Amino acid sequence: MSNLEPVTLTRRTPGEPCPIAKTLELIGTKWTFLIIRDLLTLGTMRFSDLLRSLEGISPKTLALRLRELEAHGILERTVYPEVPPRVEYTLTKKGMQLEGIFIELKRYGLTL
Amino acid sequence: MSNLEPVTLTRRTPGEPCPIAKTLELIGTKWTFLIIRDLLTLGTMRFSDLLRSLEGISPKTLALRLRELEAHGILERTVYPEVPPRVEYTLTKKGMQLEGIFIELKRYGLTL
Repeated sequence: MSNLEPVTLTRRTPGEPCPIAKTLELIGTKWTFLIIRDLLTLGTMRFSDLLRSLEGISPKTLALRLRELEAHGILERTVYPEVPPRVEYTLTKKGMQLEGIFIELKRYGLTL
Repeated sequence: MSNLEPVTLTRRTPGEPCPIAKTLELIGTKWTFLIIRDLLTLGTMRFSDLLRSLEGISPKTLALRLRELEAHGILERTVYPEVPPRVEYTLTKKGMQLEGIFIELKRYGLTL
């Protein structure tokens, strides 16, 4: 990450904007986390790759979550004019900067 | 955290257990994250403190999420035999070890 200033958890004043809540508004559903995990660890993916990797997600939910992440600037959708059209999803710089969160999720999960 | 070994994100083999997914099974709903945020930043809290702090959560959902977190060993519930009974929630050691994840969620949120 570019921002390497030390960050500590401080007492929150109710009603003030919370940076943790802001991040969770972007990525705070289980499938959203797992989509980003896959793009961080596997790189550019097609819709069908994600559908296979995320066992149990429905195509409708996957399409919805991908549209939300694109609208939030976390990933880019590229359509290649082939027959049939090829559609690929890649994390943007803003998406790549989520890596630190996923490293900590992984570090914790390794202790379970 | 006690585990300070470097952790990197590596290519995941589909079907193998994923430590990121394991962590999300414990804490991967928006309200669960925000309950842990409050206990990490504000310390021991009563049910009514959490209900006030987490604007918009229903008492039923809060009770359910607290029971899940207790069952997973993330928090402890202490009942003081007063009239009316006082019930307090505190993170366990396993819960406190989630701090690194929340520092990264905050670091990211500060860039938004």
